[in-house]
Amino acid sequence: MGCVTDFFTYETTKSVVVKSWTIGIINRAVQLLIITYFVCWVFLHEKAYQIRDSSIESSVMTKVKGVGRYSDRVMDVADYVTPPQGSSVFVILTKLITTQNQIQDFCAEEKWPTDGIILYTVRVYITLTEFICLCFIPLRPILHEAENFTVFVKNSVRFPIFNFERGNLLSSLNCRYHPITHPFCPIFRLGDIVKLAGQNFTNLADNGGVIGIKIGWLCDLDKSWDLCLPSYSFTRLDGVSAKSNISPGYNFRFARYYMRPDGSEFRTLIKAYGIRVDVLVYGNAGKFNIIPTLINTVAAFTSVGVGTVLCDIILLNFLKGADQYKAKKFEEVMSIPAVDNDKLF
Amino acid sequence: MGCVTDFFTYETTKSVVVKSWTIGIINRAVQLLIITYFVCWVFLHEKAYQIRDSSIESSVMTKVKGVGRYSDRVMDVADYVTPPQGSSVFVILTKLITTQNQIQDFCAEEKWPTDGIILYTVRVYITLTEFICLCFIPLRPILHEAENFTVFVKNSVRFPIFNFERGNLLSSLNCRYHPITHPFCPIFRLGDIVKLAGQNFTNLADNGGVIGIKIGWLCDLDKSWDLCLPSYSFTRLDGVSAKSNISPGYNFRFARYYMRPDGSEFRTLIKAYGIRVDVLVYGNAGKFNIIPTLINTVAAFTSVGVGTVLCDIILLNFLKGADQYKAKKFEEVMSIPAVDNDKLF
Amino acid sequence: MGCVTDFFTYETTKSVVVKSWTIGIINRAVQLLIITYFVCWVFLHEKAYQIRDSSIESSVMTKVKGVGRYSDRVMDVADYVTPPQGSSVFVILTKLITTQNQIQDFCAEEKWPTDGIILYTVRVYITLTEFICLCFIPLRPILHEAENFTVFVKNSVRFPIFNFERGNLLSSLNCRYHPITHPFCPIFRLGDIVKLAGQNFTNLADNGGVIGIKIGWLCDLDKSWDLCLPSYSFTRLDGVSAKSNISPGYNFRFARYYMRPDGSEFRTLIKAYGIRVDVLVYGNAGKFNIIPTLINTVAAFTSVGVGTVLCDIILLNFLKGADQYKAKKFEEVMSIPAVDNDKLF
Repeated sequence: MGCVTDFFTYETTKSVVVKSWTIGIINRAVQLLIITYFVCWVFLHEKAYQIRDSSIESSVMTKVKGVGRYSDRVMDVADYVTPPQGSSVFVILTKLITTQNQIQDFCAEEKWPTDGIILYTVRVYITLTEFICLCFIPLRPILHEAENFTVFVKNSVRFPIFNFERGNLLSSLNCRYHPITHPFCPIFRLGDIVKLAGQNFTNLADNGGVIGIKIGWLCDLDKSWDLCLPSYSFTRLDGVSAKSNISPGYNFRFARYYMRPDGSEFRTLIKAYGIRVDVLVYGNAGKFNIIPTLINTVAAFTSVGVGTVLCDIILLNFLKGADQYKAKKFEEVMSIPAVDNDKLF
Repeated sequence: MGCVTDFFTYETTKSVVVKSWTIGIINRAVQLLIITYFVCWVFLHEKAYQIRDSSIESSVMTKVKGVGRYSDRVMDVADYVTPPQGSSVFVILTKLITTQNQIQDFCAEEKWPTDGIILYTVRVYITLTEFICLCFIPLRPILHEAENFTVFVKNSVRFPIFNFERGNLLSSLNCRYHPITHPFCPIFRLGDIVKLAGQNFTNLADNGGVIGIKIGWLCDLDKSWDLCLPSYSFTRLDGVSAKSNISPGYNFRFARYYMRPDGSEFRTLIKAYGIRVDVLVYGNAGKFNIIPTLINTVAAFTSVGVGTVLCDIILLNFLKGADQYKAKKFEEVMSIPAVDNDKLF
Repeated sequence: MGCVTDFFTYETTKSVVVKSWTIGIINRAVQLLIITYFVCWVFLHEKAYQIRDSSIESSVMTKVKGVGRYSDRVMDVADYVTPPQGSSVFVILTKLITTQNQIQDFCAEEKWPTDGIILYTVRVYITLTEFICLCFIPLRPILHEAENFTVFVKNSVRFPIFNFERGNLLSSLNCRYHPITHPFCPIFRLGDIVKLAGQNFTNLADNGGVIGIKIGWLCDLDKSWDLCLPSYSFTRLDGVSAKSNISPGYNFRFARYYMRPDGSEFRTLIKAYGIRVDVLVYGNAGKFNIIPTLINTVAAFTSVGVGTVLCDIILLNFLKGADQYKAKKFEEVMSIPAVDNDKLF
């Protein structure tokens, strides 16, 4: 010890030994913390040993089934679903206000009742002097049967990095979705969708609205192929409509064009209220890969090392008695055999 | 000091003291730089103390309003908006070329003027001997009134991680969007949209094109709910069309089907030019969370420590006189009291 | 050397010298590994010196061309493409089953052949006593000419961060896409698309299905503008349909509405099978920027430094003879001139 220990009194040495013990314990705690963080969070929770594919390729087809009566008409899928192509966004019409264009010289602006239905005409000005009269025929409030219509969603997903393909069909389609008893059945009752989104069906059908069916595919491809399963969730997407008095609900206008035998074209204008359904697919898949495993393992070891160094730096510089600790540290190095190897860094 | 200092001459020691001072200053500068980087960039600019939700859920509804005259017809929304469902992508038709199918034995191929309108027929071959004649009736150049049509965009967004929902509606909708005076009004004049996208309305309406309305939601949920506001921007999306001579603009063909009293079906073919509007929603939200704050604070401290260590390594290895610095460094440690604690690492 | 070397026997010193050489080599190897990783992977492969824009803005327009004969009808674009707007998702109808609604008192439920075509009616119950009869007229198997139809895809992309705009049009459109001879031609033969997606055209047209045309834009904007080119790839998106017996293929129902001179409305219901084409655009662009370059260069240097430190820590703590190595290390520091500067950290 010779030339170095001479600078310490007995008291100082004693205090330094206590401090160096404390520092050793703190260092160990920091190392444990870092290791815990990497093992529990980075590796187990974040699955950092996997390569991850978030660029999910998805294809959605939808098919609505059910027949309803609306006023004096029987309505089937071709009547109440628009657009008809079975894409991921579609509208189920629940209320129709039909307007037949009629150009007249004069226009009865007051409403009048006919056969129990309130009819009224509205003067629509084109220029200051020209106008057309629109005759509204409001129909029965809503298509009540829509609550029992079923929506079949066929969804195929593919993770291009792993060339892994999966669909949401079951071996049998004699089922109806239920969040607990049939969580993987791809056939949904419209009333259930609306309920699971926390909405009242009659209100929604009356004012119109947008419901989202979200399909999540979070797959761990290190596990069995069978465990890569979709999870379904439901929300009202047009939250702003639900709360607003200014522009509540969802409706749009469209026309059907006809031609008279004389070649003149006329149309029926329909103001339609409906439940729009948006099918939204998201997801990602992970699979073991040596590159992220290596990089993260190295990062973990580096962090343990760095953490310890940092700990030492902080303790050396900010703790009281640091001067003595430094001296003690180097004294230890030079005394053979060294007492504790871990305290160097 | 004894056994160590003996190796230095007075001159070397002086030079070493100057170098060790320089190194101290460089170390402090590096620490300051790293701290500045973390405070200004990582914490203030990148908001690393927040958890971030980029998986924005969005629902868009659109409604166009306005009446125009095109040739001898009055056109309203149901006539000029397609598809009619009020989705995020829609076309406002601005020019129509109507073709009435007529199958004849012979076909007048020359053009001829009728009532001021140029009519012409074109022979379309189906096989080498069979053909149909198409009779084109070009109408008035463009639907000029479209410039004054309004587009109402109702947008609801939701950040699922925070279960935070927000819409773009104002308390009153008696407004018209203006980038400076009314930047949050969700009702846009079509002419303004086209102008803000840097386009000429007449050109665009004549050739057709695609305009994007981008709605950005960049929300800091640590601030007030009211400050999470959309920002609107406008671009021409089909830039390639604007510059190309080969395939300029945007148009498509569609048909309307009619049936004669005898049950035979016929159709009117319409080549439509129009302004397609795509509403694109993007955004993310951030909110304070303890986990990223902790991780980034640790990263900041680590970096300061590592930066200092690294600085020392570089200086020790690459600067002239490094040998003496090293010696000096360890000499300081052993001299009690140490002159400057920070120079150790 | 004085007071320190006294603790070593000659043998220990020799062993320590060998170990310190080994450690020097390991340290150099680790440094080389880290530098290789940064140069080859981070800088050359991941292009960490660039700022990256992944928020690609894309606009897709499509146009299908071709005429086919289906049963006794000539079908052109307006007949077989739906929706007609030329958006990124469209269906080419390949098989139609037309149903003419007719309400009768009785309903012939057996099938019967007429003019070589099998006709049959089906009783559809509305309530327990009411029903409608649907008369099916199945037509010729598929629209065979569809294999030769062409799909023209006009795609404009924009990288907003760099304000860089690019389209997929060539100087001449007298071409047909071929993966090797014409990889940039934006005009695709439908038969080629189906083949490149690994599907059989007749099967697909008969049952219906969804084909994805993926356009990738991976642009290095540090290189010439001309080198930012799209890459096209093709997949069957509804993989689940191809393999399933329960819900194979893709079809949907739609109606055409007509009005009799007496004002009563009737419709033709069409069950359509078709090939749905989804055009999917993805991509990102990178460009040199000083900020990521600086950050990553610093990270690289830091990692080299940290790697060396870490290496030392591991070697010091886990190798046999660590005590002697530590002693040797500090001995070297104190002996002037030092033998190897790199071993300190």
